[in-house]
Amino acid sequence: MKMQRNPIRKIWAEGRGAINGWLSIASSFSAEIMASCGYDSVTIDTQHGAVGYDTMVAMLQAMRASGVAPMVRTPWLEPGAIMKALDAGAWGVICPMVNTRADAERLVSYVRYPPHGCRSFGPTRANFALGSDYAAVADDEVLCFAMIETAEAMSNLEEIVRTPGLDGVYVGPADLTLGLTGRRYRTGFDREEPEMLEAIHHIRTMAHAAGLRMGLHNGSAAYAAKALSWGCDLVTVSNDVRLLAQAAQDSVAEVRRLIASPSAPEKEGPAQHEVPASY
Amino acid sequence: MKMQRNPIRKIWAEGRGAINGWLSIASSFSAEIMASCGYDSVTIDTQHGAVGYDTMVAMLQAMRASGVAPMVRTPWLEPGAIMKALDAGAWGVICPMVNTRADAERLVSYVRYPPHGCRSFGPTRANFALGSDYAAVADDEVLCFAMIETAEAMSNLEEIVRTPGLDGVYVGPADLTLGLTGRRYRTGFDREEPEMLEAIHHIRTMAHAAGLRMGLHNGSAAYAAKALSWGCDLVTVSNDVRLLAQAAQDSVAEVRRLIASPSAPEKEGPAQHEVPASY
Amino acid sequence: MKMQRNPIRKIWAEGRGAINGWLSIASSFSAEIMASCGYDSVTIDTQHGAVGYDTMVAMLQAMRASGVAPMVRTPWLEPGAIMKALDAGAWGVICPMVNTRADAERLVSYVRYPPHGCRSFGPTRANFALGSDYAAVADDEVLCFAMIETAEAMSNLEEIVRTPGLDGVYVGPADLTLGLTGRRYRTGFDREEPEMLEAIHHIRTMAHAAGLRMGLHNGSAAYAAKALSWGCDLVTVSNDVRLLAQAAQDSVAEVRRLIASPSAPEKEGPAQHEVPASY
Amino acid sequence: MKMQRNPIRKIWAEGRGAINGWLSIASSFSAEIMASCGYDSVTIDTQHGAVGYDTMVAMLQAMRASGVAPMVRTPWLEPGAIMKALDAGAWGVICPMVNTRADAERLVSYVRYPPHGCRSFGPTRANFALGSDYAAVADDEVLCFAMIETAEAMSNLEEIVRTPGLDGVYVGPADLTLGLTGRRYRTGFDREEPEMLEAIHHIRTMAHAAGLRMGLHNGSAAYAAKALSWGCDLVTVSNDVRLLAQAAQDSVAEVRRLIASPSAPEKEGPAQHEVPASY
Amino acid sequence: MKMQRNPIRKIWAEGRGAINGWLSIASSFSAEIMASCGYDSVTIDTQHGAVGYDTMVAMLQAMRASGVAPMVRTPWLEPGAIMKALDAGAWGVICPMVNTRADAERLVSYVRYPPHGCRSFGPTRANFALGSDYAAVADDEVLCFAMIETAEAMSNLEEIVRTPGLDGVYVGPADLTLGLTGRRYRTGFDREEPEMLEAIHHIRTMAHAAGLRMGLHNGSAAYAAKALSWGCDLVTVSNDVRLLAQAAQDSVAEVRRLIASPSAPEKEGPAQHEVPASY
Amino acid sequence: MKMQRNPIRKIWAEGRGAINGWLSIASSFSAEIMASCGYDSVTIDTQHGAVGYDTMVAMLQAMRASGVAPMVRTPWLEPGAIMKALDAGAWGVICPMVNTRADAERLVSYVRYPPHGCRSFGPTRANFALGSDYAAVADDEVLCFAMIETAEAMSNLEEIVRTPGLDGVYVGPADLTLGLTGRRYRTGFDREEPEMLEAIHHIRTMAHAAGLRMGLHNGSAAYAAKALSWGCDLVTVSNDVRLLAQAAQDSVAEVRRLIASPSAPEKEGPAQHEVPASY
Repeated sequence: MKMQRNPIRKIWAEGRGAINGWLSIASSFSAEIMASCGYDSVTIDTQHGAVGYDTMVAMLQAMRASGVAPMVRTPWLEPGAIMKALDAGAWGVICPMVNTRADAERLVSYVRYPPHGCRSFGPTRANFALGSDYAAVADDEVLCFAMIETAEAMSNLEEIVRTPGLDGVYVGPADLTLGLTGRRYRTGFDREEPEMLEAIHHIRTMAHAAGLRMGLHNGSAAYAAKALSWGCDLVTVSNDVRLLAQAAQDSVAEVRRLIASPSAPEKEGPAQHEVPASY
Repeated sequence: MKMQRNPIRKIWAEGRGAINGWLSIASSFSAEIMASCGYDSVTIDTQHGAVGYDTMVAMLQAMRASGVAPMVRTPWLEPGAIMKALDAGAWGVICPMVNTRADAERLVSYVRYPPHGCRSFGPTRANFALGSDYAAVADDEVLCFAMIETAEAMSNLEEIVRTPGLDGVYVGPADLTLGLTGRRYRTGFDREEPEMLEAIHHIRTMAHAAGLRMGLHNGSAAYAAKALSWGCDLVTVSNDVRLLAQAAQDSVAEVRRLIASPSAPEKEGPAQHEVPASY
Repeated sequence: MKMQRNPIRKIWAEGRGAINGWLSIASSFSAEIMASCGYDSVTIDTQHGAVGYDTMVAMLQAMRASGVAPMVRTPWLEPGAIMKALDAGAWGVICPMVNTRADAERLVSYVRYPPHGCRSFGPTRANFALGSDYAAVADDEVLCFAMIETAEAMSNLEEIVRTPGLDGVYVGPADLTLGLTGRRYRTGFDREEPEMLEAIHHIRTMAHAAGLRMGLHNGSAAYAAKALSWGCDLVTVSNDVRLLAQAAQDSVAEVRRLIASPSAPEKEGPAQHEVPASY
Repeated sequence: MKMQRNPIRKIWAEGRGAINGWLSIASSFSAEIMASCGYDSVTIDTQHGAVGYDTMVAMLQAMRASGVAPMVRTPWLEPGAIMKALDAGAWGVICPMVNTRADAERLVSYVRYPPHGCRSFGPTRANFALGSDYAAVADDEVLCFAMIETAEAMSNLEEIVRTPGLDGVYVGPADLTLGLTGRRYRTGFDREEPEMLEAIHHIRTMAHAAGLRMGLHNGSAAYAAKALSWGCDLVTVSNDVRLLAQAAQDSVAEVRRLIASPSAPEKEGPAQHEVPASY
Repeated sequence: MKMQRNPIRKIWAEGRGAINGWLSIASSFSAEIMASCGYDSVTIDTQHGAVGYDTMVAMLQAMRASGVAPMVRTPWLEPGAIMKALDAGAWGVICPMVNTRADAERLVSYVRYPPHGCRSFGPTRANFALGSDYAAVADDEVLCFAMIETAEAMSNLEEIVRTPGLDGVYVGPADLTLGLTGRRYRTGFDREEPEMLEAIHHIRTMAHAAGLRMGLHNGSAAYAAKALSWGCDLVTVSNDVRLLAQAAQDSVAEVRRLIASPSAPEKEGPAQHEVPASY
Repeated sequence: MKMQRNPIRKIWAEGRGAINGWLSIASSFSAEIMASCGYDSVTIDTQHGAVGYDTMVAMLQAMRASGVAPMVRTPWLEPGAIMKALDAGAWGVICPMVNTRADAERLVSYVRYPPHGCRSFGPTRANFALGSDYAAVADDEVLCFAMIETAEAMSNLEEIVRTPGLDGVYVGPADLTLGLTGRRYRTGFDREEPEMLEAIHHIRTMAHAAGLRMGLHNGSAAYAAKALSWGCDLVTVSNDVRLLAQAAQDSVAEVRRLIASPSAPEKEGPAQHEVPASY
């Protein structure tokens, strides 16, 4: 089986931004469901998601038939975890907390084979899932994203985005807000504070100027669409935990509302419980 | 630890109907999430859900802290599976395809200890999860539901609802429609065909006349609320698979709609993919 | 996603026999590997294989992208297990020890929806894996194989093969030999005894006369090819356990042979350990 | 690898009774620990224990090196579960709720190969774990125990113990007490009521008269030793759940006692929480 | 759901020391059992325990209902593992081999959010298990313990205990003895050698002087009680492996002793096998 | 149970080289099968293999009865992963990408107890699996292999092989070829290029001169035998993924060849699909 091109790169080549799903529930079935819902790519979150290695592999397998591009957010800038995710068949990694040029160089080195990096050769499942010519094309197709989410990263941004071999930066607004503004604001995504908007636009501008892609984590479809309109190249829209919890809470609340006042006109009421914002 | 009363019985004692969640994804985390969403009870579906025994146990454990009543739909009228679900700490079982009085008597016998039935004694996890006096009170607290979902069951309904030890009947509208009307109508829940409405009301009336409870599987909050208004005692509202798939599809479709015509007023558009109706 | 036709039915429509793989190791990765090796269909053996329900689901998921037809051999003629295999996305079931017309009718009833059978409706994963129109076409596409492997089945063969709704019979030569000849012969496949050959040909003739397909379990490529030349419609060739064990033993034996007499010409020597014949 | 004799049969051949451990925790490590503690045999309880099929296999694997005889209590008198336990490498099965001669004959038929029974041939893991000549000797070595634990079984005892192919009866005192005396007495093991002692002795006498072995489930070392002195052939002593819970509770209680009155002489005080009796 | 205070901090606020259980068996059921035995807190050992990430999550879920404080000993001073344990709902971490002030500062930085540390924000399961206001109170409630168990740590102790943000030190006597005295003494806990007692008292004194808590790993109730009397703030008493193995060995040995000399007075004899001391 | 000597050390003491199997499939059953095939040792690959921690433990358990020496290749030079593999009962570790003397010293320090290293004491499963005197003999028996597979490692080779406490070097030819020659040659094992042969011989010579053992990863029996003839001390022969995939592909291809030209003489034809070379 010859390798097909990374679906995200195809979308970018067509001038579009990619819509990304996000998996924090450790289940191959919820992964298979999510991969059928229309996303261009789906990322398994092995950092904040409740997902360990063995389950991650099953989730990658369950998404293979869908044609979406599977990616993995790694727990940290650790060579073992990053290489294991790639050998297991991820089309790309998103690495948290890349704060310096040295961090970014280490990240790239874990993702690329010699002489571009020090990735060890053994794409055991990738050979089956991504094509028997994986060895020949992996360095060109696999995506390497560095997360920019601290004050330190912001001050080193220019150096980071110029790291050879890096494909993109990815912004986690919850951490970035904590990092830049301390605890002045609520935690979470979909920031509207001027300094946060400015920071996000600054990252995007710098990334694009260096020829990199820019991804943004979002909590709502509306914000994700806005991010695409700004020129973001990959937008994550919510995650499985929040989608499920919100839908279930809305559903129960709607029943309770209807039995309390059965004649009331149907409307989308506020959820009974707040789903806490994460990431 | 003394046993607390079955939460569903408490709700009934207060004159209310119970709102039930439904789990078809094999994951202790999605179970824990669903158990936090406001349901009165949550049922693990080991018949049509993608859930095996080992995962069912982890899901029961993950829901214990929530205070919702955990129940299990068993794969079939099989003594091994029914007793294992109860020993693992389910507060009740919903058994599919109970078609005759003999079926109903076998079901009750698997759920009750001698001399009322032939359940074998060994509530290994129930002792820890449901109270150290489980042995003394289980026969009074555990719920035993028989599913009425075939033409044969309808014709034997009067005998079935009079089975001593049975607590309630539960209606699966998808199977009941197939069973009563063949393939004249679409599969699924939330029936509006007159003969199906009549069948559902007939079951409810017969159950109540015999002193039993009546549960109904529903696909939407609106129908579940209507079922409560009819006097149904336990209403299931959708399930985790449909809630997640629908929410994810809506979310992606909303992004695509917004980027296609960014100035369009926000509305709840139709989902891009249909979530197939099941059960 | 519209449903595609069952790949095995397509092969038959083209006048060919299907080459079937067999999985007894509980691993989604070995399943994914096997599904890439050129088989037309791959069957997960939940009877004699070391595979339980939760792992079976992961194996079905891992094979989905390959395009091979996934099937499941069920542990026994049990409605719960049979329906769970189908709901999980198997394109067919092979049921052991179907000995009478009544057994065959029960089997069919578990595999077909009303009014043809009593299968309960809820194809939770099949909806995602096999097509959103699964409900409409399942009864036409899902394959139902009855195993003929006892003396009792042989004496009831004519009645069994005429069971409406049955698609085929499948022969397990190890059990059939035990059943017909006691312990006169070695256990295992690839029978050469005249009475066993006669029995196999008799089953094939009877099946074909009744319009059914006939499958045969084989231990070697040579015997499988012979079975196809006889007109068998589905031939299983060895299984993952035997393939792995034999290949590993041959590999080790070859090293030991070469270091013992390094100048000896390379030949395919006898395996150091015999892989026991099973099934 | 040639098969070794079933260790329990060896012990019996030496005129001794076997001391049996009992596993209700689903963990291959607790199984490996228990198998190192001096028991002659260890039984995995897939009826009341929280153990499903996939975990049972891992537990059998983890105990293999110990040399103890692994056995499985099956969930019920079900052919699928019984044959899967044997194929997975159990040296014997203990089947609950064998109440009639017909039950006993079905049980034997599931455990023995034709012509003695209808066990299907495919000892996939047993071939590796119990010897490559398993096919030849299994019917002579595998143990088949029927549980006698109901009033019905007592009244059919003479017929049951004369079932050809049965190796022994096993008594579950908790169920037997419920079955014979209703709820007059506490649930649990280690019965001292005269009618229960009489029942146990009667079963033992009848079993021995028919040439069968007799096993007894016990809650304490003292009662197990007494049972051996009566001539019981296999005595289970407590289980992993009770051993762990009691040891942990005693340990915590001892700390609390010592810090409350540090000068008090050390003694084995009553446990703070009662471990509920099960089975 | 509002967050409740960390149960260990409540106990300390009442002037008591916490009694801690310890889990090395990978099983959600043994975790649930242990959490019911009277401990104030229970720590999952992902360093020397046979527990990986996926199982750790299930164990945290299974203990949630008990009200004990769940903690995790991490494999090493690694940011990925530490943050994943906290996001999964641990109320605190115990980190091995903290040998220098720099180690301690890195540890604190992984446990606290900016600006106090660099913990990344995404308490996915903690939001559900520990309270929806987790983000607001986590830095005040989560416990951060550094293990002091090497000669190097002893020489840097004064600097280590003054690390801002550290809550306590935890002593592993087996490693500390190896580290301070080489192999002069047996491995294990409950040290009585004067230099080891002196070291333990020195650590406790230094910790308390710096306003930190001090925890000690113990092998027996007697030593744990003694440690509490010294002023230790958290005492671990044995672990699940040792409790189970010792109880099982004692139980078997008692049976063997009684059948060897049935008239001997009952006494608590020495275990047949020694449970090796670990940690 | 007293500890037995590491089987690999025994083989070396007899003047032979060890034949090593390699596991990349996450399954305790495929591990048990492979351990029965005649290898002297079997290594679980947790670097490129699709194996996480929890499954690794089950695989170690399943191989215990075989008597082969279980080893683990660790994901990276990480103390947590290395110590967890040893505590879980590996007789040795093979660590990838040891490029400098400092790397080698860190590796040794993670494998040896003080004062030789900083391994933390807690051999929880090793105590059960490898002997109750594990603490006393582990430093003498456990094997510590450093992988030499980069240009940097080659230039530091003399310093690396003189690292006290190191037992051997292990060569991964795929990575070494990438590292030394860039992408001039195909990836994979069984190198025949003169500069690669020279490199391999150089490593062996240097290792032996320093008193170390030398291991080589091979793709075929023929090359493994040649490596033994050169004096290599441990030769890996293929792995489970390649053995299974090649055997399955050959088997299917043989059926297809025979049905295409049934009279053709049987020969070992080329595989239909190439199994990609890995590692």
